[in-house]
Amino acid sequence: MSEANLSAVVVEKGKLILEEGPIPQPGKHEVQLAIHSVGICGTDVHVLTEGSLGKFMLTDPMVSGHEASGTVRQVGEGVTHLAVGDRVAVEPGISCRYCTNCKAGRYYLCPHLEYPVHGLMCRYKVHPADLCYKLPDNVSLEEGALLEPLSVAVHACSRAGITVGYRVFISGAGTIGLVCLLAAKARGAAKVIISDVNAKRLEVAQQMGAHVTVHVTSRDRQAMADQVVGALGGHADVTMECSGAEAAVQTGIYATKSGGVMVQVGLGADMITIPLVDAALREVDIRGTNAYPNCYPTALSMVASGQVNLKPLVTHRYSLEQALEAFEAVKKGEGIKVMVKCDKTNV
Amino acid sequence: MSEANLSAVVVEKGKLILEEGPIPQPGKHEVQLAIHSVGICGTDVHVLTEGSLGKFMLTDPMVSGHEASGTVRQVGEGVTHLAVGDRVAVEPGISCRYCTNCKAGRYYLCPHLEYPVHGLMCRYKVHPADLCYKLPDNVSLEEGALLEPLSVAVHACSRAGITVGYRVFISGAGTIGLVCLLAAKARGAAKVIISDVNAKRLEVAQQMGAHVTVHVTSRDRQAMADQVVGALGGHADVTMECSGAEAAVQTGIYATKSGGVMVQVGLGADMITIPLVDAALREVDIRGTNAYPNCYPTALSMVASGQVNLKPLVTHRYSLEQALEAFEAVKKGEGIKVMVKCDKTNV
Amino acid sequence: MSEANLSAVVVEKGKLILEEGPIPQPGKHEVQLAIHSVGICGTDVHVLTEGSLGKFMLTDPMVSGHEASGTVRQVGEGVTHLAVGDRVAVEPGISCRYCTNCKAGRYYLCPHLEYPVHGLMCRYKVHPADLCYKLPDNVSLEEGALLEPLSVAVHACSRAGITVGYRVFISGAGTIGLVCLLAAKARGAAKVIISDVNAKRLEVAQQMGAHVTVHVTSRDRQAMADQVVGALGGHADVTMECSGAEAAVQTGIYATKSGGVMVQVGLGADMITIPLVDAALREVDIRGTNAYPNCYPTALSMVASGQVNLKPLVTHRYSLEQALEAFEAVKKGEGIKVMVKCDKTNV
Amino acid sequence: MSEANLSAVVVEKGKLILEEGPIPQPGKHEVQLAIHSVGICGTDVHVLTEGSLGKFMLTDPMVSGHEASGTVRQVGEGVTHLAVGDRVAVEPGISCRYCTNCKAGRYYLCPHLEYPVHGLMCRYKVHPADLCYKLPDNVSLEEGALLEPLSVAVHACSRAGITVGYRVFISGAGTIGLVCLLAAKARGAAKVIISDVNAKRLEVAQQMGAHVTVHVTSRDRQAMADQVVGALGGHADVTMECSGAEAAVQTGIYATKSGGVMVQVGLGADMITIPLVDAALREVDIRGTNAYPNCYPTALSMVASGQVNLKPLVTHRYSLEQALEAFEAVKKGEGIKVMVKCDKTNV
Repeated sequence: MSEANLSAVVVEKGKLILEEGPIPQPGKHEVQLAIHSVGICGTDVHVLTEGSLGKFMLTDPMVSGHEASGTVRQVGEGVTHLAVGDRVAVEPGISCRYCTNCKAGRYYLCPHLEYPVHGLMCRYKVHPADLCYKLPDNVSLEEGALLEPLSVAVHACSRAGITVGYRVFISGAGTIGLVCLLAAKARGAAKVIISDVNAKRLEVAQQMGAHVTVHVTSRDRQAMADQVVGALGGHADVTMECSGAEAAVQTGIYATKSGGVMVQVGLGADMITIPLVDAALREVDIRGTNAYPNCYPTALSMVASGQVNLKPLVTHRYSLEQALEAFEAVKKGEGIKVMVKCDKTNV
Repeated sequence: MSEANLSAVVVEKGKLILEEGPIPQPGKHEVQLAIHSVGICGTDVHVLTEGSLGKFMLTDPMVSGHEASGTVRQVGEGVTHLAVGDRVAVEPGISCRYCTNCKAGRYYLCPHLEYPVHGLMCRYKVHPADLCYKLPDNVSLEEGALLEPLSVAVHACSRAGITVGYRVFISGAGTIGLVCLLAAKARGAAKVIISDVNAKRLEVAQQMGAHVTVHVTSRDRQAMADQVVGALGGHADVTMECSGAEAAVQTGIYATKSGGVMVQVGLGADMITIPLVDAALREVDIRGTNAYPNCYPTALSMVASGQVNLKPLVTHRYSLEQALEAFEAVKKGEGIKVMVKCDKTNV
Repeated sequence: MSEANLSAVVVEKGKLILEEGPIPQPGKHEVQLAIHSVGICGTDVHVLTEGSLGKFMLTDPMVSGHEASGTVRQVGEGVTHLAVGDRVAVEPGISCRYCTNCKAGRYYLCPHLEYPVHGLMCRYKVHPADLCYKLPDNVSLEEGALLEPLSVAVHACSRAGITVGYRVFISGAGTIGLVCLLAAKARGAAKVIISDVNAKRLEVAQQMGAHVTVHVTSRDRQAMADQVVGALGGHADVTMECSGAEAAVQTGIYATKSGGVMVQVGLGADMITIPLVDAALREVDIRGTNAYPNCYPTALSMVASGQVNLKPLVTHRYSLEQALEAFEAVKKGEGIKVMVKCDKTNV
Repeated sequence: MSEANLSAVVVEKGKLILEEGPIPQPGKHEVQLAIHSVGICGTDVHVLTEGSLGKFMLTDPMVSGHEASGTVRQVGEGVTHLAVGDRVAVEPGISCRYCTNCKAGRYYLCPHLEYPVHGLMCRYKVHPADLCYKLPDNVSLEEGALLEPLSVAVHACSRAGITVGYRVFISGAGTIGLVCLLAAKARGAAKVIISDVNAKRLEVAQQMGAHVTVHVTSRDRQAMADQVVGALGGHADVTMECSGAEAAVQTGIYATKSGGVMVQVGLGADMITIPLVDAALREVDIRGTNAYPNCYPTALSMVASGQVNLKPLVTHRYSLEQALEAFEAVKKGEGIKVMVKCDKTNV
């Protein structure tokens, strides 16, 4: 029947199935959404293949997917800024709103954060209304789903303090590296250099606006840093490390100016060896970044005003019924962003 | 003779003359410049017509002009980053380098600042080398002179904390309002509204990229603020008040969001009445801005990278020999920026 | 009967009565409190005598009082950090938790803030549990009520950026001026000067640790500022203006160093004339301050660790039954803080 | 003769001698000092025993010592804030005043910084006057010399953003750990815990005001962090890592709250392995700290106002003639601070 809530569920480590579930009803401050597009992220694949993500351990079956957009079908009590039919981007993480971190505005550091549970790769979903951002007419639902990775970049750039005139070094040209490129330029970065071990990714980066690209071939971190500094015309004001690789972390510190910042966006091995004395004496700050507190409105504004163009990121599309194939495509490393289309009535 | 140092000198209140003076020799850390272009600023006219500027009182004859560029003719001892023939933008204010403010990086708050003395509207000038910024090939000497007003905007935007996605309200569409518009957009402002009592200036603002313009006709400040808020789609994250008019200051506070910032760029009457309780309870910060500490490199980077285009600002050009006519043109309020060309060998 | 909820209610402008109401039951995330101590603030008197406070207009009867402490009698669903019998300080303002400002940590700029409604001068009160801060054994319930004005000072000092070694000028030695004195010193201010028109208040300020006091007698703002600067041994790094008087605001700006901050804590006339050009050119920031987002834990820590001693602030005590007399005492300007004791079982 | 300039000179790796040199004359903006007290720092010993310090390599003989105070004997041209006979603390590092970092206020990141050359362990020394801070009558010359390590702590606390109410974890209870303790408390830290492998040092820390001490015995970094968190009553807002040991760095990250800061003050091995994913996801910033830009005035104010008491730090005193013995005492790890007294006329 048309109302069945088809969902892509990770039932256990390594096993993704499609199953039908009940359609939830919105409570106070909530809306019910018809999910439209859900991008697949490397962390979704990691949860599927490893049954874990950082400290999160998969114990019960969970719906996959957290880069989503949809259309409002019902509004719960107290919801005033949304109406049935509104197209929205969905900010996935649900925090407690009561702890010290939530009240201080750092709500992705909330110890009670519901993430990555309650995934969005399904037909219908109930979500807090304040985490659903109405899309203007000139922003598509697919772009709405892409606000999630863009918001990662918005927060990372904010943590790094990127502003006009900056020289920025981005290591890693995957989806996150690419959205960091877009976001850094939108904040006024004057010169952005991006590096990767994969030459094809660098071509995409160049098409998306990188001023310089560096193909990483050497294992000599100081030499790689020298190459970056030479190409930038000086040390980077900010390095955005998007790979998580130890070699890249070290290169990033060496390539950052004294008094600069390296923001660690990528996640690799738990323990990494870094040149701490060099960073400490040159006051190169090493800052982390987690999700995107208060970033969706900015990301939406960037797309709506035309400051960034996310459309080239989507290279593959699958229907919800094809979700397993979509995950296989991501595992193979094909293309950039693979999108799962959940709304049969609105393709 | 070719070596005469023709200079435009304010000899007393109301009296500007052209006279020839000696050619100074560069000392340690200094360069000798052949001045190329000097823009005329409202403050230059104010010093001429009033014989004063804020707390500065004209007591001795002084060379006029502080928006300048030139070519290096000689380099003094210890200068390593410049060579004869280099084209440079000139940062005019010379601070003591020894006081608390200089050592803390706020060198335009130096109590010993030499400004506006030692003007630059002359053939040859000696200046500290570190305040001369080498222009790359794709930046003209005229653009070099325009780095001065652009640097005012760079500092004002920095004081205001403008970043990507911001809604910005600029009141006043003179030269400073226009460069604030360019600088705010380069920092990622998503929507910039600009107001003026002069409709012709608003046309220029629109051509230079303002998203909305507001022709100020009413004396009702709250009503004007409502109009701005309506056009912006919400209160301004930041207001840049570039007129100095009391009505505009009040409108600016009302139009700024709770928790936002109004930066006071324009200077009008010494004493201004403001809605202080409204600003205080809504935590609308009122911040001043003085000159452009550490801003020239950023301004230059913005022009060199193509983020801003300053060329449309120059509407009139005069030779140094025509300096009096140039000042008359500014007094009449003709055009936007009037430029005096000091270098006969390099026009 | 013992369970009657006696409350001090402002029924209309100028009329405060004692009446018995129902005892509310705690919902989810809430606790029921037996209120213990409630300090009377100037704003409580203002609401009573004027029937308004800023944009708030008294339309329905409201319980007075917002500086309160109490003992937990019942805990609602989902409350884990409090138990029956816990002694708590009560943060009074209740924000929506869903708007942009709430989620960004600036929850006193929430447009839906419930304040000053839902006063606390009564026997029993239901309140959000996360806004009730458990007092350690060495902090009394009366000190708990005083965390409210102390939190005002904590936020004001934070807005001002006061830190170790600072010279601080506080104008106004009422309760708020005095807690600002305590808070500024706890943050490391090296020298605090405080001014008032009332010499008796200055004696109290001196006893509470002011390094210098200035009796304001002149109407010459520049002369007053010079006196402050002379006594401080230099301009103030920060001025905390706690009077709201125009003369004091002007003096405050003149007395603040270039690059310094004046935080406007006191509220006076809506429109105030200020030396805006002086503030703008010297980059003296004028910052507002509203309530105390995320400040109660800090204020509590300051009292619990012995960094500040609030006890000397309480000069008068009345029972809840004597609430009208208590308000009369405040109106007469007697003493510093008048405390209403609401808990007969725990005096 | 009395005018001989006896100096303690490191002539080569491992060899310190006393020799007489010429007495320098002050130039513009300089003063000539009779050096009074010079503390010996671990880095002085390192330069002596290793012939290097970080990237600095000893090539020519150099006078040792950089924690100094003295009396003004002559003032050079342009010096107005000092007079003969003034007692001063000496900020040792001399930066270029012309580079980007100098002009931005971060003058210890100056690439031309003269440090550690031009040591101060001698009878007479010429130094830039603006780096000599006049001591008020209630601050001794020995305290003046101790402003150097205190300034290290002032900058480290500033980099860390320590303020009132903070929980602070300091690892390492040597001189730098102890001055960090004093500085953190002066900025309002509510609870300071300090750890060391040496129990005797912890006794000193307790006498100097540490709230809790932790004797490090385990190699289990997570367990050590748990112990710190338990003793603090929560994770540290700020960790000041003053040992440079890898185990302490790791413990420091684990013990810091999500959204907190670890400032790396101590310097150990060049390459250190850290839990980067944990730091990144919890947004624990890792910040370096180099010297003390603009910190001497604050440090002096802290001592002059009685906020900190440095006197207990000095445990050993030697005359300049006994400089070799003084170095031997430091090498043996005796006491805390060893002071060399250079002024025979003013002991």
